[in-house]
Order: sequence, then C-alpha cells, then structure tokens
Amino acid sequence: MTGKCGLAAILFLCASWASVGQQAPTPGSKTLQEVLGYPASARLLIIHADDLAMSHSVNRATFQALEKGWITSASILVPCPWFPEVARWAKQHPEADLGIHLALTSEWTDFRWGPVSGSEHVSSLVDGLGYLPSDVDVVVRNAEMADVEHELRAQVNRARSAGITITHLDMHMAGMVASPELFGVYRKLQSAYHLPILLERSGTHSPPKGASVPANDVLIDRAITMEPGVAEKDWLDWYRKQLAPLPPGVYQLIVHLAYDDEEMRGATWDHPDWGAAWRQRDFDMVKSDEFRRFLQEQGFVLVTWKKLAEAQALRDRQTLH
Amino acid sequence: MTGKCGLAAILFLCASWASVGQQAPTPGSKTLQEVLGYPASARLLIIHADDLAMSHSVNRATFQALEKGWITSASILVPCPWFPEVARWAKQHPEADLGIHLALTSEWTDFRWGPVSGSEHVSSLVDGLGYLPSDVDVVVRNAEMADVEHELRAQVNRARSAGITITHLDMHMAGMVASPELFGVYRKLQSAYHLPILLERSGTHSPPKGASVPANDVLIDRAITMEPGVAEKDWLDWYRKQLAPLPPGVYQLIVHLAYDDEEMRGATWDHPDWGAAWRQRDFDMVKSDEFRRFLQEQGFVLVTWKKLAEAQALRDRQTLH
Repeated sequence: MTGKCGLAAILFLCASWASVGQQAPTPGSKTLQEVLGYPASARLLIIHADDLAMSHSVNRATFQALEKGWITSASILVPCPWFPEVARWAKQHPEADLGIHLALTSEWTDFRWGPVSGSEHVSSLVDGLGYLPSDVDVVVRNAEMADVEHELRAQVNRARSAGITITHLDMHMAGMVASPELFGVYRKLQSAYHLPILLERSGTHSPPKGASVPANDVLIDRAITMEPGVAEKDWLDWYRKQLAPLPPGVYQLIVHLAYDDEEMRGATWDHPDWGAAWRQRDFDMVKSDEFRRFLQEQGFVLVTWKKLAEAQALRDRQTLH
Repeated sequence: MTGKCGLAAILFLCASWASVGQQAPTPGSKTLQEVLGYPASARLLIIHADDLAMSHSVNRATFQALEKGWITSASILVPCPWFPEVARWAKQHPEADLGIHLALTSEWTDFRWGPVSGSEHVSSLVDGLGYLPSDVDVVVRNAEMADVEHELRAQVNRARSAGITITHLDMHMAGMVASPELFGVYRKLQSAYHLPILLERSGTHSPPKGASVPANDVLIDRAITMEPGVAEKDWLDWYRKQLAPLPPGVYQLIVHLAYDDEEMRGATWDHPDWGAAWRQRDFDMVKSDEFRRFLQEQGFVLVTWKKLAEAQALRDRQTLH
C-alpha cells in the first residue's frame, strides 16, 4: 500500500499546489510526518472540535472528548458567553491543545454574540443591533480590515489574558479565506502571534484564489468536514469513506460536538445544519468504539496542532541550513 | 380589616418617607389604587421575573409564566446572549409587560457578559477581560458616570431597535441605587425615556441616603424579594408570610425563574444563591395552585408596570390641575 499511496500523495499534493498558487516546497525537504519521526507513508490526523465556548452544551461535550482522547484539539469562539468556563477548564488541563476560532460571524437566530472589542469600536463588523452578522458574505462586503485586525487581536488577547496557551489559529465559517483582504489579516496574525494557522491545500479552508503562500505554511493536506445532506444513518459511513482512501499526509477532521439538549436546540432550532442533533451525532461518533476501531485499523496517527507547530519549526530550521 | 390596615399603611409609608428623604405626596392626592379605580384598601401586586435573556432556561420559564399569567411583568438583561430570543418572543406577544434590567454587573463564574457598547468604549465599567464586574462594589468604586449613562442608553436603545415596547426600567443587583451618582443616572434615564423606574419606599431598591425624590415617582411601597437562607421546604411559606400582612398599597414581588437544567446548573454551579435550584423553586411556586389560590384568597390585585405608568400619568395630571 505504501508505494501506491506515496505516488497518489505526490499527484494529489502537486495538483493542489497548482490550484491555489502555493509556492512549492524546497526540493528534498522532509514531510511533516518524517520530521516527526514517522515513516513517509504515515497519515497524521488531528481530530478537531470547533466552536468551543459557544454554549455549555458544546463545552460539556468537547471537554469530555478532549479528556478521553476522542479528539485531539479544539478551537475557541472567544466572543461567546461560555468563554470563562473554557478558560477555567484550560487552567486545569494545561496540556490541552486549544486554538482560537477567529470569529467575524454569529450565525444563529435567537442566540447571538458581538465583537469582543465592542460594537462601537468596530462598527464595520456589526449589524444594526451590534452583533456580528450571520453570513460571511456580509463580512466580505462591509468589513474594514483595520476593524477586522483590531477585533481578532482582541479575541486572541482575551484568551491570552485569561491564561490560555494557544496552539493555533483557525476560523469560524471559513471567514478568513473568504477574500484576499481577510486572508491578508489571517497571515498577519499568524506571524504576529507566531502560531500555525489552519490552511488546507485545496477545499473550504484553502487560501483564496491568487494568494501566494509558502508551501511550508500550509500544514494540512486536507480538512475533512461534513457538509449538509448526509442522512443520520449514513453518518459514520460518510466519515469512513472520507478518511479511508486518504494517501499519506497530514489531515484534520473537523467535528462539531454538543449534546442535543434544550440549550442547544434553543440556539439552533431553525438551523438543522450544524444544529443540536447534528452535533450529538458527531459526539456519538467520535466516542463510539466503532469509529475508534476504524481509526486504529486504518493506522491513522493522531496528532495535535502543538505537534504540527513543532514539526513546522524543525522543518523551517532544516530548510534554512 | 380595612381601617386597621389603612392606619398601618399610613404609619408604614410615613416611616419610610422619612428614612429616605422622599418628598411627601401632595395632601389629598389619590393613591395609585384609587386612580386606577380600586378602593383605597386595595393591595396591588406586580409579580415580576428578573434576568430575562440571561439564558435559554430563564427564557423558557419566564415566557411560560408570562403566557400563563403566573407573573405579570419581567425585565430584560440586554447584554446577555439570549436577548434575540426575547426580542422575537416580544414581537409575538406585544401585550407583554417588559422592562429593561439595567445591568452593570455580570455575577457568574463560567458564564459572563460584557457591555453592549463595547469594553473599549466604556473602560471604567469592565474588568481585565472586558466583562462587567461580578460585584456592585466594584462598579461603585470604578465606574465613571459618563460611561454608565452611555452603556445604559445603549442597552435601552438596543431593546428599542429590536422592536421591544419597554414599560419600565429596573436594575440588576440593585446597582442603580448603590451610590448617589448611579442613582442620578437612573433618574436621568427615567426622564429621558419617560419610563417609570423601580423604586420602593424602603428596602434594597429604595433611593440612596440623602437622595430627594418626589413621592409620586416612587410607585412601589415595597419590593418583596427573597434573600439567601430560606430552606427549600419553607419556600412557599416564606412568600406567604411576606405577602399576607401587607397593608393596602402597591407591591412588587420579585422572582427569579428558570429550569434547574444543565445550562442553568452550569452557569450557577458555585453560586447556589439565585442559582438553578432556587430559580426552579420560584418557578414551581408561581405556577402552583397553592400560591395562586393564596393570592386570590388574600385579594391581591395583579397589575403590570404599564398600568402603574398610566396611573402615575393620571395622578401627575390631577396634581397639576
């Protein structure tokens, strides 16, 4: 399987570099797998839960999944009301791999949040009531980049002030790759905070058209995240079908965890996509013996963003010498 | 009973006017009960739920209590995440009696909120993480009145922009009577928005020492609100003992409604006073046949803030002529 997968991987990666205009890696440089001491044929996988801090229901499910090792990483919606619960938990779990889920949108109907820096300070980021808008399209149309940078720094800084060790930055609703300008701020934050950012070679979380990114800064070959339309009975199968054929490389499986409880149903009642039942299904899946056995049989190596950042630093050093 | 109660009422009211330096009412002017067409011996009662919008659990319980007539009024914590749910419900229930629960504090540990106008805009109102502080004492020490007025206007304005018809203003954790300066802002908002404000003749919600208030502006003779220390088995009895001996007058019973569910336990886990179980007990009480029968037997006349405002306007007009 190794040889075949290796060739497939090369074709897959070359195709996607071309598609997003990323700069090719230095010839002969090691893959992240190799830098971390795994064979070139290894498939590294981050299992990542989004939207931590959104609600108590999300927190309960995600904390449990992190503590049990069902997932390896999560990222935090800092403007949300349950952020202090995350900060307290993080202090009790300093080894937890936590990133910032940079947020410029607030997508529910009955339950919303505004910018951390304040609606009056970043007026191009808010709707008439002072909340972040529901759609990324509105952000692309209205947001001034000075406001975006100011607010996102405020989100990262609040998490740092609360004592959270941040391992990576990623983005709510793929907002930071929705335009070249937003992507520019994402890259700026990456270097300002010396943190890896979620970018995949192609797909929802890849750089916008025309953006030029050093290949070494794109750590994820593919982010696997379910889109609407999968029936409940096909849930586990869908994930298996995405993961099984992957060639050697570095992957992130993005899940959305919560309990299907009153709080979560209240927040998502008119929005079944990524809603309460969806999140309960993801939670049931990551903790199921069946899924965990599947990962083991497939030989996936579970990793964290912290590990990837170490590998990136090592590789950058090797490239320099 | 009427004569005795009438005398008791006069003594009770005179004593409390003296204690807070309120200006005596115009001699011969009618009581609010009389202005509203009730006999002078009537006891009017607002049953009022605080903290609407705080959580989905609070909203569910409070909406049900308002719809069923178990309570007659409620006030909204505008900075809280579930405010949009309240705004949507209010549109469907335009007759609902809703006030603004002016908030300068955010008292829970794992679940907090910041100012509506933004932590950077009203920096004297927030802690190191940008949230409103836990205690009123901190507000009294640090808050600049320009920030207080700016933020509280932003809270009222957000509710108005969301289409809510506001019937009154009151205050979270009795913050607006915690200092003469804060009280000054409360009075300013009262006249700016032409809304009645919660003030009682003596007690937690009475004007601060030395403040001079026209007696006609103090609409509530006494606000009854449970303080910590009542055992679960004595819950209903405590309320009965407070209400039964009241002389004729205008009263507000303040309750805190929610379900004792995961969300509410998560928010209040280290804070049993006014916590999840407390709120479930208040909810169970207001909806119980026993309590409702008690109110009826006692002859309390249930009223709203809207009704009181009408009575106040009528009385003011009569006083002028």
